[in-house]
Amino acid sequence: MVLYLIGIGLNNEKDITLNGLDAIKKCSKVYLEYYTSKLDCNIKNLEKLYKKKIHIADRELIENDEDILLNEAKKKNIALLIIGDVFSATTHINFLIRAKKLRIEVVVVNNASIISAVGIVGLELYKYGKITSIPFENKNVKTPYDALKSNLKNDLHTLFLLDLDITKNKFMTVNDAIKYLFEQGMEDRLCVGCSALGSEKPEIKSGKAKNLLEYKFKKYPQCLIVPGKLHFIEEETLNLYK
Amino acid sequence: MVLYLIGIGLNNEKDITLNGLDAIKKCSKVYLEYYTSKLDCNIKNLEKLYKKKIHIADRELIENDEDILLNEAKKKNIALLIIGDVFSATTHINFLIRAKKLRIEVVVVNNASIISAVGIVGLELYKYGKITSIPFENKNVKTPYDALKSNLKNDLHTLFLLDLDITKNKFMTVNDAIKYLFEQGMEDRLCVGCSALGSEKPEIKSGKAKNLLEYKFKKYPQCLIVPGKLHFIEEETLNLYK
Repeated sequence: MVLYLIGIGLNNEKDITLNGLDAIKKCSKVYLEYYTSKLDCNIKNLEKLYKKKIHIADRELIENDEDILLNEAKKKNIALLIIGDVFSATTHINFLIRAKKLRIEVVVVNNASIISAVGIVGLELYKYGKITSIPFENKNVKTPYDALKSNLKNDLHTLFLLDLDITKNKFMTVNDAIKYLFEQGMEDRLCVGCSALGSEKPEIKSGKAKNLLEYKFKKYPQCLIVPGKLHFIEEETLNLYK
Repeated sequence: MVLYLIGIGLNNEKDITLNGLDAIKKCSKVYLEYYTSKLDCNIKNLEKLYKKKIHIADRELIENDEDILLNEAKKKNIALLIIGDVFSATTHINFLIRAKKLRIEVVVVNNASIISAVGIVGLELYKYGKITSIPFENKNVKTPYDALKSNLKNDLHTLFLLDLDITKNKFMTVNDAIKYLFEQGMEDRLCVGCSALGSEKPEIKSGKAKNLLEYKFKKYPQCLIVPGKLHFIEEETLNLYK
């Protein structure tokens, strides 16, 4: 039996690939990992298009040690749908290891990830450094700032992923992230705020941190980028988003 | 009129998304950017599935200043298909800028990229540093080595993309890349070689550079990863690929 780990992309039900759809057809049960990101459509849309009932897999189900989901995959083909690409969230590597230890065959179907979708802002993907997340509670949290400092020192761009809590329908905004930068004394730093990346109409705004604070991004999830050293082509692209 | 930039994923014709297929349907002419990567299917497979004739866009057509393709997009909907994700190759950002200057509406349809597909080897995607390419002629080329040194110093992983020449059907191998590492005196360095990432059966091998040299990867394109500092979960995953 096969465990299919299927990326379903960043935006809506039609971001699935044909290979992804084929894999779903082979499965007797379909789960959706629903705690590390969100789509801009509801689960009914997925069910209608994929023609399968979708079971929500929360953190407890994916990360618990009893391996309920993996034990099911011993007996029948199971699909686990993952928003974005399959291994963009670190936690899913652990899941892969446990599956392999149980000798379950795993097939991965890749899809778009925020990590390459940020390419649209015009900063070279090759020149990003460490990616970091800003949590809701960040008063004395230095990890994101340390990653930024280290990247800047090495002339690299920094992608900040922003916290979310699906169960409470709560999402960190670009503005929240900029306030975090303010606390590190970076109000004049050039930033790029994004929302709805991967959709037909992404929102992208570049400007100094203090100026970006005036702009309200309307969709979720959002992310913030702080550019490192700019090549003139990168500068030219960012100017398109001023 | 709209210029659709459509990622078609990493492996075969069925890696396109439903949104990508819908976009192709709206276009009077479909180009395939065919010089920065390769698929594991031929162009006839794409034409059959997409139900459109596919015109090959080489470097000359995409990067020339006469903007033949962009000028077409002023008069009718044009699709440019890109292997992997749309902006994984730096050159396409330049294309986006030129389109915007000509006031052409651009819609991006994202897809899987090697940048997130490497997640399967088990190294955290958040902890990769600068990505670098090794060219065929690399005798005195220090850029890839400098990127590696800088990433290692910062405890970050390094993804090496390997040169290819589609017109000559010539692809750099993991072994070629390891020989480059040898010249930098890194024969004992832990490496991960990959081919066919994004397919149902990717090849992944981890081991010391000198030991990996004995393994022949069968598919293309290939890539090489040199891990930085390892978390125990990362080490455990790499062990699965020994």
